[in-house]
Amino acid sequence: MGEVAARFAGIVGEVNLLTGDRISEDYAHDESLTSEPRKPAYVAKPGAPGEVAALLVAAGEHGVPVTARGSGSGMSAAARPREDGLLISFERMNKVLEIDTGNQVAVVQPGVTLAELDERTAEAGLAYTVFPGELSASVGGTVGTNAGGMRAVKYGVTRHNVLGLQAVLPTGEIIRTGGKTSKISTGYDLTQLIIGSEGTLALATEVTVKLFPRLPHGATLLAPFGDLRQVMEAVPGIVSSGLAPNILEYIDNLTMAAISYNEQLSLGVPDEIQQATQAYLVVGLENRDAGRLDGDVARAGELLAELGASDVYVLEGGSARKLIEAREKAFWAAKSAGADDVIDVVVPRSEMPGFLEKTRETALAAESGAIGCGHAGDGNVHLAIFCKDREKRHRLLHDIFADAIARGGAISGEHGIGAAKKRYFLDLEDPAKVALMRRLKHAFDPGGILNPGVLFD
Amino acid sequence: MGEVAARFAGIVGEVNLLTGDRISEDYAHDESLTSEPRKPAYVAKPGAPGEVAALLVAAGEHGVPVTARGSGSGMSAAARPREDGLLISFERMNKVLEIDTGNQVAVVQPGVTLAELDERTAEAGLAYTVFPGELSASVGGTVGTNAGGMRAVKYGVTRHNVLGLQAVLPTGEIIRTGGKTSKISTGYDLTQLIIGSEGTLALATEVTVKLFPRLPHGATLLAPFGDLRQVMEAVPGIVSSGLAPNILEYIDNLTMAAISYNEQLSLGVPDEIQQATQAYLVVGLENRDAGRLDGDVARAGELLAELGASDVYVLEGGSARKLIEAREKAFWAAKSAGADDVIDVVVPRSEMPGFLEKTRETALAAESGAIGCGHAGDGNVHLAIFCKDREKRHRLLHDIFADAIARGGAISGEHGIGAAKKRYFLDLEDPAKVALMRRLKHAFDPGGILNPGVLFD
Ligand SMILES: Cc1cc2nc3c(=O)[nH]c(=O)nc-3n(C[C@H](O)[C@H](O)[C@H](O)COP(=O)(O)OP(=O)(O)OC[C@H]3O[C@@H](n4cnc5c(N)ncnc54)[C@H](O)[C@@H]3O)c2cc1C
Ligand SMILES: Cc1cc2nc3c(=O)[nH]c(=O)nc-3n(C[C@H](O)[C@H](O)[C@H](O)COP(=O)(O)OP(=O)(O)OC[C@H]3O[C@@H](n4cnc5c(N)ncnc54)[C@H](O)[C@@H]3O)c2cc1C
Repeated sequence: MGEVAARFAGIVGEVNLLTGDRISEDYAHDESLTSEPRKPAYVAKPGAPGEVAALLVAAGEHGVPVTARGSGSGMSAAARPREDGLLISFERMNKVLEIDTGNQVAVVQPGVTLAELDERTAEAGLAYTVFPGELSASVGGTVGTNAGGMRAVKYGVTRHNVLGLQAVLPTGEIIRTGGKTSKISTGYDLTQLIIGSEGTLALATEVTVKLFPRLPHGATLLAPFGDLRQVMEAVPGIVSSGLAPNILEYIDNLTMAAISYNEQLSLGVPDEIQQATQAYLVVGLENRDAGRLDGDVARAGELLAELGASDVYVLEGGSARKLIEAREKAFWAAKSAGADDVIDVVVPRSEMPGFLEKTRETALAAESGAIGCGHAGDGNVHLAIFCKDREKRHRLLHDIFADAIARGGAISGEHGIGAAKKRYFLDLEDPAKVALMRRLKHAFDPGGILNPGVLFD
Repeated sequence: MGEVAARFAGIVGEVNLLTGDRISEDYAHDESLTSEPRKPAYVAKPGAPGEVAALLVAAGEHGVPVTARGSGSGMSAAARPREDGLLISFERMNKVLEIDTGNQVAVVQPGVTLAELDERTAEAGLAYTVFPGELSASVGGTVGTNAGGMRAVKYGVTRHNVLGLQAVLPTGEIIRTGGKTSKISTGYDLTQLIIGSEGTLALATEVTVKLFPRLPHGATLLAPFGDLRQVMEAVPGIVSSGLAPNILEYIDNLTMAAISYNEQLSLGVPDEIQQATQAYLVVGLENRDAGRLDGDVARAGELLAELGASDVYVLEGGSARKLIEAREKAFWAAKSAGADDVIDVVVPRSEMPGFLEKTRETALAAESGAIGCGHAGDGNVHLAIFCKDREKRHRLLHDIFADAIARGGAISGEHGIGAAKKRYFLDLEDPAKVALMRRLKHAFDPGGILNPGVLFD
């Protein structure tokens, strides 16, 4: 074992320090479709914040770049390690430390998965409402990417639901930010700065999240529309209705076909309606009271019809769950259909019709495909891009992102920039902002050891 | 006119640059009770972002410290200028630029007051839900302090409701952060970093805020409790009930007496109950449906009784409004009663009983008074401190803040640190965090011209 490896092993214990062949393929990538796997020189599995701090100090002294890894389900290659680097995997720091019902918060270690947190909060009648499509994702990873997901339309994204952190600075100090309160005006908000920084500023070793009462009654409506533009135009109407849907997704017809096929989903929509449908809207409602839910479902049904839906289906428990699960797996359907990239542009809600129309034209002109679905309530459009030629695809993505930005949107709503979308970010973002962000990065990480190559070159 | 004044006047026009006697007393202070008024050397009233940028560049070149001012209703002396400084007053940049109903956002200049924004959003059936007690406050000022207020228990604080900014960096660049979308994972969140930075990092020249449907039906419940501890213990029960109150305040008996007297308020609570009351809980409910509101009021009444209220009064329109208004004026009541300071500690909700008990003891031991009210749903306790002796008061506040921090809270929930609470902040905050914040400050403001003496020395 080399000197550096021995130093790391001294910190986490030999069994928790992997090198060479002991490093499995899994650690070499996340779920980005465009980044080649890359095995790191070292994988360390710390068991405590102090070990993380010691690893960072050691890495700093030896000039070893460090990448944090939760579950590796990210889409931006931000958890993909460097070949000469140390991958810090939080898999052993996976305890739910506290479910605090009085304050309605949970305190967890970063390696806890969303699936486990969901189970544990359910026992207390509470819920952590950040649900990206992949529940194997770790809480630390969602802090890294500022993950969103379907419920964000009602409950907000990670940023709105993480109240505090324990975090290790690249210089080795362990700090606490925020706490079990949802308001603090006492200095700069370090919690918010670390959230969404994709492992480039500090590593979270403990996360305090906000919980909500788990509402017992829910319903899912499926509304086919003859016209994609109409779907998009319906969205603001539903948001402003006061019905406060907890899910508001659109799925275009090709994506619906792909996920229905992949998941053997049958929704009971007659063939002739399916054929005349360009896109579907999925509306989730929930309530603590069954009668009120019924009232809301009726009102939502009327509203959808007024807004141009060709029909409205109220899905029962089992098929509702299946539809949502299938929608969450849209990524796998796209992947198995041969998609060359997946993007998650965000634009103001009202810009979605124009953006999607323009994107369709741009893709067509490039002899490429761009189909998708998305968190329509948030203006967050997920598109599977079909375009084998790399240079052509770069130009296509550049044009799509530029259009989104021109409409007041951004390259990514929830997946992050990572390494995968960096060239577009550096090309299209205001240089004054990028320069400022670099200075902030330097203020946290003067040695530049945390995730170099992510966000910046 | 001196050289520097001439330069500033050249930017904003002579009529918009005040010096000497043309500077009124108003510009010398905010509403902090402990900071001596201090007239600045210059007051400039820019009319456009470009003028703000030019002022900052000029100030930088001449080494003139710059303080931003909205309406001067802040509580932390963060808008109090330096004697040798330039005060940039945003009073002329006071236009509502857009009420965008499709995206449910408003775009405003920073000098717009909350009262005006409330009027303008009402016309569209929408509301900006950040309501600190002082509606003359400017949107820019609320960005500066991360203002909260009564509705934060349901809708969050400024941080949760500002989606984007146009901001001028102290180096003169004009940047745009965020936008008309509620989720973005594209680089560091500069919006969130600027919010709550009390004019020390960048100046907001345009603010994009989230709006919510204005719910037409509301009710206010007033519940006297025999015991302060019981009030505090009731709070988590109401939060977790799923009733989602939009107001959840406590008012102790002395404060209630003071505001009732000041505002000539009569709530119809019989004398014998008043005398047996240690504190009141005020619960606001709202709904888009009148029937559902009635159901919620009934449920809330039962719940309050179960939780130990000695009675529950459902206040009608006029007296409900009066009570809320009187509560908002608690600060003026405290001031006219001779309070020596007002603080707004935040602790986890469940820590409120212990914190208040301890604070009462600490104040008693110091032969001082600490009475108050607060945003109980958020753990945000507003206390009027009665203690004439300055050194004694410093020790008392130090002990109260230290106790709040030990309980997982912070010095300020919404008023900010400013200059008024700086010594406690620098004393009690983790030095590693303060050092990091200083580095962030330097990354924004290498010349140190923005609000020196606020937050840091
Ligand atoms: C099928 C599928 C569906 C998905 N749907 C969604 C969706 O709807 N919404 C959405 O937002 N995302 C979605 N994702 C993406 C992914 O689930 C999220 O990005 C998630 O946040 C990643 O968590 P992870 O633990 O896998 O993180 P990783 O991929 O391991 O890491 C992500 C980033 O976080 C950093 N990081 C990890 N741990 C820490 C830590 N402790 N401290 C600081 N930084 C850390 C990493 O360095 C990296 O930059 C989906 C992914 C898949 C495969
Ligand atoms: C009776 C009363 C009740 C109150 N109740 C509450 C309450 O319930 N909740 C609460 O949170 N606050 C409350 N406050 C405090 C106050 O209203 C808020 O702090 C408000 O945010 C101040 O707004 P302002 O425009 O007066 O800001 P100012 O006092 O002018 O400035 C506040 C800070 O913001 C900075 N600033 C101003 N404009 C800008 C800009 N454009 N860009 C960047 N920084 C800027 C200033 O430099 C300063 O640091 C109350 C005050 C009073 C008098």
